[in-house]
Amino acid sequence: MEFLGPNYLIGNQTGLALFASIKDLPIIDAHNHADVKAIWENGNFSDIWQAEAATDHYVWECLRKRGVTEEFLTGKDRTNEEKWLALAEVFDELVGNPTYEWVHLDLKRLLGIDELICAENGKLIWDKAKAALARPEMRQQQMLQAMNVEVMCSTDDPVDSLEYHRKLAEAKCPVRVLPTFRPDKAMNIFKPDWREYIGKLEACVGTTFESVLDLVAALQQRHDYFAENGCVASDHGVEVPFAFDVEEEDADEIFRKAYAGHELEDDEAVLFMSYLLNEVAEMDADKGWVFQLHIGAVRDVRDSLFDEIGPDTGGDISDHMTDIVTPLRDLLNRFDDRLDIVLYNLNPVHTGTLAQLTRAFGARVNLGLAWWLNDSPIGMKRQLEYVGSVDVLMNMAGMVSDSRKVPSYASRHEMFRRVLADVVGEMVERGQMPLPLAERLVRTLAYERPKQLFKL
Amino acid sequence: MEFLGPNYLIGNQTGLALFASIKDLPIIDAHNHADVKAIWENGNFSDIWQAEAATDHYVWECLRKRGVTEEFLTGKDRTNEEKWLALAEVFDELVGNPTYEWVHLDLKRLLGIDELICAENGKLIWDKAKAALARPEMRQQQMLQAMNVEVMCSTDDPVDSLEYHRKLAEAKCPVRVLPTFRPDKAMNIFKPDWREYIGKLEACVGTTFESVLDLVAALQQRHDYFAENGCVASDHGVEVPFAFDVEEEDADEIFRKAYAGHELEDDEAVLFMSYLLNEVAEMDADKGWVFQLHIGAVRDVRDSLFDEIGPDTGGDISDHMTDIVTPLRDLLNRFDDRLDIVLYNLNPVHTGTLAQLTRAFGARVNLGLAWWLNDSPIGMKRQLEYVGSVDVLMNMAGMVSDSRKVPSYASRHEMFRRVLADVVGEMVERGQMPLPLAERLVRTLAYERPKQLFKL
Amino acid sequence: MEFLGPNYLIGNQTGLALFASIKDLPIIDAHNHADVKAIWENGNFSDIWQAEAATDHYVWECLRKRGVTEEFLTGKDRTNEEKWLALAEVFDELVGNPTYEWVHLDLKRLLGIDELICAENGKLIWDKAKAALARPEMRQQQMLQAMNVEVMCSTDDPVDSLEYHRKLAEAKCPVRVLPTFRPDKAMNIFKPDWREYIGKLEACVGTTFESVLDLVAALQQRHDYFAENGCVASDHGVEVPFAFDVEEEDADEIFRKAYAGHELEDDEAVLFMSYLLNEVAEMDADKGWVFQLHIGAVRDVRDSLFDEIGPDTGGDISDHMTDIVTPLRDLLNRFDDRLDIVLYNLNPVHTGTLAQLTRAFGARVNLGLAWWLNDSPIGMKRQLEYVGSVDVLMNMAGMVSDSRKVPSYASRHEMFRRVLADVVGEMVERGQMPLPLAERLVRTLAYERPKQLFKL
Repeated sequence: MEFLGPNYLIGNQTGLALFASIKDLPIIDAHNHADVKAIWENGNFSDIWQAEAATDHYVWECLRKRGVTEEFLTGKDRTNEEKWLALAEVFDELVGNPTYEWVHLDLKRLLGIDELICAENGKLIWDKAKAALARPEMRQQQMLQAMNVEVMCSTDDPVDSLEYHRKLAEAKCPVRVLPTFRPDKAMNIFKPDWREYIGKLEACVGTTFESVLDLVAALQQRHDYFAENGCVASDHGVEVPFAFDVEEEDADEIFRKAYAGHELEDDEAVLFMSYLLNEVAEMDADKGWVFQLHIGAVRDVRDSLFDEIGPDTGGDISDHMTDIVTPLRDLLNRFDDRLDIVLYNLNPVHTGTLAQLTRAFGARVNLGLAWWLNDSPIGMKRQLEYVGSVDVLMNMAGMVSDSRKVPSYASRHEMFRRVLADVVGEMVERGQMPLPLAERLVRTLAYERPKQLFKL
Repeated sequence: MEFLGPNYLIGNQTGLALFASIKDLPIIDAHNHADVKAIWENGNFSDIWQAEAATDHYVWECLRKRGVTEEFLTGKDRTNEEKWLALAEVFDELVGNPTYEWVHLDLKRLLGIDELICAENGKLIWDKAKAALARPEMRQQQMLQAMNVEVMCSTDDPVDSLEYHRKLAEAKCPVRVLPTFRPDKAMNIFKPDWREYIGKLEACVGTTFESVLDLVAALQQRHDYFAENGCVASDHGVEVPFAFDVEEEDADEIFRKAYAGHELEDDEAVLFMSYLLNEVAEMDADKGWVFQLHIGAVRDVRDSLFDEIGPDTGGDISDHMTDIVTPLRDLLNRFDDRLDIVLYNLNPVHTGTLAQLTRAFGARVNLGLAWWLNDSPIGMKRQLEYVGSVDVLMNMAGMVSDSRKVPSYASRHEMFRRVLADVVGEMVERGQMPLPLAERLVRTLAYERPKQLFKL
Repeated sequence: MEFLGPNYLIGNQTGLALFASIKDLPIIDAHNHADVKAIWENGNFSDIWQAEAATDHYVWECLRKRGVTEEFLTGKDRTNEEKWLALAEVFDELVGNPTYEWVHLDLKRLLGIDELICAENGKLIWDKAKAALARPEMRQQQMLQAMNVEVMCSTDDPVDSLEYHRKLAEAKCPVRVLPTFRPDKAMNIFKPDWREYIGKLEACVGTTFESVLDLVAALQQRHDYFAENGCVASDHGVEVPFAFDVEEEDADEIFRKAYAGHELEDDEAVLFMSYLLNEVAEMDADKGWVFQLHIGAVRDVRDSLFDEIGPDTGGDISDHMTDIVTPLRDLLNRFDDRLDIVLYNLNPVHTGTLAQLTRAFGARVNLGLAWWLNDSPIGMKRQLEYVGSVDVLMNMAGMVSDSRKVPSYASRHEMFRRVLADVVGEMVERGQMPLPLAERLVRTLAYERPKQLFKL
């Protein structure tokens, strides 16, 4: 029962043996938010705040719950050391939240710091981490290698030049860093900044759009460019997975209206988004890419965060009332058996629906692991227990870290591998599967399945 | 931790003792999809594909996930042996899904075959099963007796002649096979084949319908006929349990419109279905039958399966967004305390709502066990754990297999009894109930309760 | 595995030690339905039916499931002894429902009666309890002291005179009994008795309302009066938490329409309720009170109970289809960081949404423990397991009993403390938190957090 000790998250003997068999497998991380420029530049993290908290809104959210103000989180008037000490002041009150475990895992496994973060240890850990992070083997690329990362796929806008992906590839960086095509900004026609974004996309491809087909052509051009640079998947962050069958002429009319600056009805936005999502899926099908849907994030619910700090700062939630089946079924049928689709499950209420959809649609529609607010130990455990009972576990797409900071890749994957070993180990101990198949199952989900699915 | 060994699914000592006390009780199976003609004919299964896979879309769905094509599942150009060998090729990849357990349970408990299904063993098991299935004690009636099935209720359309139920009754078959009245096709006015079905019903009763009352009279006539043949329950498979109070004249107008071949509005279909469901409930109340609602199946979501193979082939799911309370409350109030109602729970998201409804409506409205995509070990376990906390466990309607193949009855009921013993055993070990009451509880749900509720 | 023995509800050694460390802490109970007049009068309960069942619809609901009729529950023609014996006749069939545990806990811990309630023991327990309840130390105030209740907050209508709260305070009753401001009747403009209630409120403050502002002023006057009498919180029981931003003039128009006796559209009721809820929240923010929302109770679903016996008799449920995010977000943003809000979670399907909302809105928006149909051992356990993974456990508002009978306070809190110790203990044993922090966490949620949050 040592904190983060050998038995961490594993409650049965078979699970311990299963974990031992997979813990050293390389990491395939098919979805994250890596700062590729920073990886290319290969600097050291200046300090532990920079490494662990500066880019991670999971940490901010928890600290806000304990009264830490924006001044010490996202503000510009405090030093990183002041911020870290403010974090340390309340960190033990986060206990029970996986953030408490993740940050300590990073300290312990990566930096060799065993102290618990608390008011008394704040300065000590600051100093120890400062020294540890300054070592040459803690440069970003070396850190990724130390964590045994084999391939990782960042999340990139179609207008991105992929300059740093190219540089890393040319330099034969031992950790492969591939782009992912994420055209959310082109999709989100209901947002105030859509028109401005379309301008950027026009500039990027050097044309002026006269119809929705020009927009599609531009995305196709960037899709091709991404392919040339190693991309193997598109990804789409949607609250509701609108993917109805829509005629081109209807989409075109809506496009022209919005392009001209007129406001749209809600229904029009739904039709446009549906059309464009289907078009990108078509491009993916042509190239044999994986089409990923991250379903259910309700964005920017807390106005004060959005207004003062911006998006992706902690104001996102999910909602049990999100409709999935009706909006998504047209696309699933249109691409039946000719596109690899991965559905990511954010709200635990959606698990059953998604698992049953993936069961119904056969070999090429599959679930990703529990995502974001659901990828805690209990979230992943409950997802694995239930999903296996409806769908086929061997089909799941494997763990992705969704990570926003380099030091966290290994901790994220360790947590998943332990939960997986625990769940499967318990099934073995309850006589639900033979041990050799359990060994194959955990190895598949921990490594082989994402490698094969994403062709990595 | 032996696969399907003595401790299968049971994680506590008390649970093992509880299971021992109920494992040999006869099986009462109040809902399944038995092929009654085949039971009457009492043949042997030709081979293991015929026995285990030919009629079971659970198996097909899992095999599709691993890339097995329709040619080897539902196609007509492959022999059963070729199909079985294709199944064996990938079967170990289904591990973790209850289908893996159910099929092995059938092999092991019924046919005495202990080998695991896998590429290497495919032919061996084919041969062993061929021999085992050919024995006289493996004819269908003898197989049911060997599994200790006391009564089973098939699912039958009102136009069914019940010829084979009658023959079995006349022959005093030791396994009682009763019909269940399932008028879904008369209800589903929104379906393209409704009008054609109404023609069949007219032919069956020898009248031409001039109003909705004629339709009701025809159903009443068949209801009476089913009663004469031992029927004790009606059953209704509904996506949304529409059961609003509707005036006869409104229903009649809608009936005439659809009868004349005109298309209906969605709202009209809802009103008609509500009306007719209430009418059948009235017939059940008059006769003291049990009124069963299977709630939440969203049918035929995958077009390719429906178009090429038909309904009930694996394209059905459930949806967390199904509305239950509003559509159902009129009927629950109308029949308050004068009709035995069983609600079956398909999507785990609906569990709380259903359990609270059954709690509120007293002694005669009760839950059935977790159904279909929810009757896996984890699905049943979670349902039992939660339902007991809201409703009264002793009131649950007991296990039904929903089975589509004869060899599976015992395995289905064994799985339920083990999960029940595990859940109740854990409650005893946690000091939540005295052991003698736990013994009574598991015996009640495993046998006595369905016998009493369905008057079997 | 003794029934209600030392290990009751606790499955791990660490959990047992954690429970030992908190079991004797005083009880802070910030929400219940105490009969304050009865507490002031400080009588003895006449008998065990009066103490345990006469005011508790949880008991009635379970007994109805086993066929006990209203005559023996809510009727007036049977003696309490006859009712108790009818209860005893079927009580062992309630096993598995927490009511079985709660009532036995009260008997065992409070009255020292160890016998199980069953047909044979009914009369014996009746007699033993009669004697035990007659002792001077079982008068209501002494009973609350014996259970170590430090503070308890009843639920009171704005027109309540608080006469008995005042008397208890003046008499320096060692158990502090504070009022809670619950203006549901003023909010519920859609109900037939709203207009009549408004008359009562006018009489109470001695004015005639000419606009919605007069209504608000009346509530403000009563809010001030409640504050003078020790009130620290408002509470609101809502099916859907309608709290949209609404202009005063719109609310005023709707108010005048309803005041004049005209029927409202559904939308109008929503706007009025939204307006008034925001106004009360404003009063709470001004005074530093806690604003509590009990979300999701669908009231009086079973007509026969409502028509014949009235509200709060067992016809309430919750519905997975309740919308929360959209109706509630305006209020959460309007009061961002300037009001302490507690959201109570009734349907397990809403847990994720609520926990994510409280995570997003920072330090002052927090979850209450699982409520009502969800505060069983399994309901609380699942809530704690999941909520900790998304939100911060230290922030939860602590246990409230929601109790409707004096003898149950200690049993309710014991059950919570045991479940808390079990969940946290298991996290320690799985290496998810260091033991000293676990000790702090359970102590915080069992006692310190509600004391600090409600300023008790």
